[in-house]
Amino acid sequence: MKAAVVYKYDSIGIAEEARKFIEESICSAEIFHIPDKRLEGYDFIVSVGGDGTILRILQEVLKCPPIFGINTGRIGLLTHANPENFRDILPGIIDRWEIEEFMRIEAEINGKVMMRALNEVAFLSNTPARLIGLKVSVDGVEIEDMRCDGMLFATPIGSTAYALSSGGPIIDPYLESILIVPVAPFRLGWKPWVIKHDRRIEIEVSKERNALAISDGQKILEVGNDDEVAVFRSQFPAVFFRSGFNRLERIRGKLMSLR
Amino acid sequence: MKAAVVYKYDSIGIAEEARKFIEESICSAEIFHIPDKRLEGYDFIVSVGGDGTILRILQEVLKCPPIFGINTGRIGLLTHANPENFRDILPGIIDRWEIEEFMRIEAEINGKVMMRALNEVAFLSNTPARLIGLKVSVDGVEIEDMRCDGMLFATPIGSTAYALSSGGPIIDPYLESILIVPVAPFRLGWKPWVIKHDRRIEIEVSKERNALAISDGQKILEVGNDDEVAVFRSQFPAVFFRSGFNRLERIRGKLMSLR
Amino acid sequence: MKAAVVYKYDSIGIAEEARKFIEESICSAEIFHIPDKRLEGYDFIVSVGGDGTILRILQEVLKCPPIFGINTGRIGLLTHANPENFRDILPGIIDRWEIEEFMRIEAEINGKVMMRALNEVAFLSNTPARLIGLKVSVDGVEIEDMRCDGMLFATPIGSTAYALSSGGPIIDPYLESILIVPVAPFRLGWKPWVIKHDRRIEIEVSKERNALAISDGQKILEVGNDDEVAVFRSQFPAVFFRSGFNRLERIRGKLMSLR
Amino acid sequence: MKAAVVYKYDSIGIAEEARKFIEESICSAEIFHIPDKRLEGYDFIVSVGGDGTILRILQEVLKCPPIFGINTGRIGLLTHANPENFRDILPGIIDRWEIEEFMRIEAEINGKVMMRALNEVAFLSNTPARLIGLKVSVDGVEIEDMRCDGMLFATPIGSTAYALSSGGPIIDPYLESILIVPVAPFRLGWKPWVIKHDRRIEIEVSKERNALAISDGQKILEVGNDDEVAVFRSQFPAVFFRSGFNRLERIRGKLMSLR
Repeated sequence: MKAAVVYKYDSIGIAEEARKFIEESICSAEIFHIPDKRLEGYDFIVSVGGDGTILRILQEVLKCPPIFGINTGRIGLLTHANPENFRDILPGIIDRWEIEEFMRIEAEINGKVMMRALNEVAFLSNTPARLIGLKVSVDGVEIEDMRCDGMLFATPIGSTAYALSSGGPIIDPYLESILIVPVAPFRLGWKPWVIKHDRRIEIEVSKERNALAISDGQKILEVGNDDEVAVFRSQFPAVFFRSGFNRLERIRGKLMSLR
Repeated sequence: MKAAVVYKYDSIGIAEEARKFIEESICSAEIFHIPDKRLEGYDFIVSVGGDGTILRILQEVLKCPPIFGINTGRIGLLTHANPENFRDILPGIIDRWEIEEFMRIEAEINGKVMMRALNEVAFLSNTPARLIGLKVSVDGVEIEDMRCDGMLFATPIGSTAYALSSGGPIIDPYLESILIVPVAPFRLGWKPWVIKHDRRIEIEVSKERNALAISDGQKILEVGNDDEVAVFRSQFPAVFFRSGFNRLERIRGKLMSLR
Repeated sequence: MKAAVVYKYDSIGIAEEARKFIEESICSAEIFHIPDKRLEGYDFIVSVGGDGTILRILQEVLKCPPIFGINTGRIGLLTHANPENFRDILPGIIDRWEIEEFMRIEAEINGKVMMRALNEVAFLSNTPARLIGLKVSVDGVEIEDMRCDGMLFATPIGSTAYALSSGGPIIDPYLESILIVPVAPFRLGWKPWVIKHDRRIEIEVSKERNALAISDGQKILEVGNDDEVAVFRSQFPAVFFRSGFNRLERIRGKLMSLR
Repeated sequence: MKAAVVYKYDSIGIAEEARKFIEESICSAEIFHIPDKRLEGYDFIVSVGGDGTILRILQEVLKCPPIFGINTGRIGLLTHANPENFRDILPGIIDRWEIEEFMRIEAEINGKVMMRALNEVAFLSNTPARLIGLKVSVDGVEIEDMRCDGMLFATPIGSTAYALSSGGPIIDPYLESILIVPVAPFRLGWKPWVIKHDRRIEIEVSKERNALAISDGQKILEVGNDDEVAVFRSQFPAVFFRSGFNRLERIRGKLMSLR
């Protein structure tokens, strides 16, 4: 068994401590600052940083080894421990090896999956303060056609991220589904939609202006009227060690911190 | 095989025509104006009226025979035909006998199921323009504690009814889940919640003032601080004949009519 | 000079102390529990209670003597002191005699002013969980026509009261204007309106169901399709002693307490 | 007397017709495609295009000659005529010479007015899908401190433009005031604010990331944590010929078109 330790730039000290601790008490461990595809080859991943560090790891791995998060940031919805207590928590969690999976979402552009997100794929205007036109169909039925700053396609986990800012509801993390919510829609009478996880969403960008497709705020691509764009549930979920935390309680905690 | 025809008071003429048509071409049929428990004994139900007529039928039936709706009202999200075309549509539908089920929700008061709804159970202040305090827990985790005009617990079908007025999202009718949304919350920083269908929700009314529990706008009970109140998915779904309509398209149509 | 002391039922002790203090150090003073029209004959009013106590006083007085509020309740946006410090604050305020006025709003029914409010006049459905139809015109131009739980016509001060629950903005207390905001509108694509203080608003209740007109949650009247209903700025503002508090800071404080 | 005719690139034909008509029946007239400062020297301006054309003119003129708008675009809230009827309408309007003024808003950066807007000054993150921190004070009182996509400071006229997309209310065009509304705030419990026209607003950008300041979607500047930024009512309103249209009716019409 071997572990990978991935860290946020300001958390290298704790990452070193974590690596040492793992090597002494669990298995061999290597350190990564920039996460890459090789992470798939490890038995588990320890992320040292915030939720953003985990999002960056997930940009690189398709088949995801279980992740254990040591939180050194502000709000850690996805983390399991902090620098003070990870030594007490990690060994038991490795021992029990109980995992939980959270759905990810994929964006396909012209027939090829181009991005993957744990929180959301956003389609935003490529020019600040200028509207784009977006048409959205679900399983072939057009449900929205509007000019807006952008549109978000979020997972349940992502309902507490960018989608929260745009007027979306909170989705139970265990309710597999896709949340569709516009950003600053220049139209009255819109509603967020929560659709079944196995639906296929198609997005058409109007000719006027291109959109930036952005996955979890990490990866950016430009798409235009000529591109065939679809969004759907990924077959490759994010995998985490199950923590003792109640998921609803943690969401409640995050919401409280945002008041 | 025998059918029940239930009608809205202003649609008796069409109900008579429907009964005659069923008797001539399908099976025996009886007419009900006031729906009651005996409807459970019929093989199928034909509702002549609007969605409200179907809601009233569903207040009475636990084990629900398949419903076919002839729409004589404004917006018919749940209906299958209109007075002009039901003769063309009904026989084929009876022939194929394909049904679909939509989840209902139940409210339990002091250990006993007291109401059942296809759209929502609402808890509203018993005094107009006066706040009630409501505390909501999901599987034991408190997610809201607020003063408000009321709180709605809605099904996916109900997301286009009362919950729509109170800022809730549109939920895919095939995504089994419970939508929680406050009515006129006198607090900032709240969010609608969409939770998994198998969760148990508990509601505590504060001492200050009692709440009216109202199912689908039909049945009313008063509950107070002494009452133990829970809401959850019913084991008895509403049953409809499958229609040729695409569900998302019909929702889109209803939303358009509300703009 | 003579003062009136009006108190909330649970604050009689402090009211007695306030009366004694005023008589010893300022002028003669009488105690009222139930506020009535005679309050207009006093030189100033001391309210002992919360904002609700002040709202009840204002229901009775047309020409309003300056009000000084001693807060014994939760959030006191309109009060000047608390039971601990009123002895230090009141004499200086009487000495300086600086007042500020906040606009009130009136509802006229069939040509006669029937109610007056510092916060809002609400028109709500007379049946819980049942919609009413309301059509709203401003200076003869129809701006809304919808089915809803109700509609609020609020003052700037009232923008932090009931209107806040229904999705209204916060209005600067010194910006004379009328805020129109529906309660649970069963229509998509509505917006709150903030209109100039000298506009005349006319409201038409649809035939289907009567509305309850409620001023500041205190006084209730029933109005129907036959009634001619108008709302506008009152010529009789509420009058308060100017306090040392910055108004925006107090609003900010109230908003923080509602998070 | 001399007139300037300013046109949108696709409306040159109508602009030529308008110039000819003015020269034949009113006074001398010159054509501008790119509006510039010299427009201030004309007695009146005829804009041929949409509201965007008028916004571009207003970016250039401080002391504004009265504007007459010929609408060749989609929704013309600010225009007076269309290509078919301007010949009937313009002469009478020039004859009566009744004007109306609408407040503009200015952004001052480090003590110098750097931009002016009829609709809004927007402060947006300089990186798509990345939050900026903004702190907003009104007359020295901090009213918001949040991470968001951006924040809008809009005029009453601007309440039907970008601010409408971000959850702001509709403001009466004759109610001089400033509307503050965040874009995609990553915080719960915020509210739009409508403040008095003579207040001074100060904005502090957090260190993390710079903001783009954008006036009416036309002019862009970058501002950071070191900059002192203020927004307030301009002394130089936009000036229009008074049209026969009722302003509330036109707003209602625009809102209907956005449903």
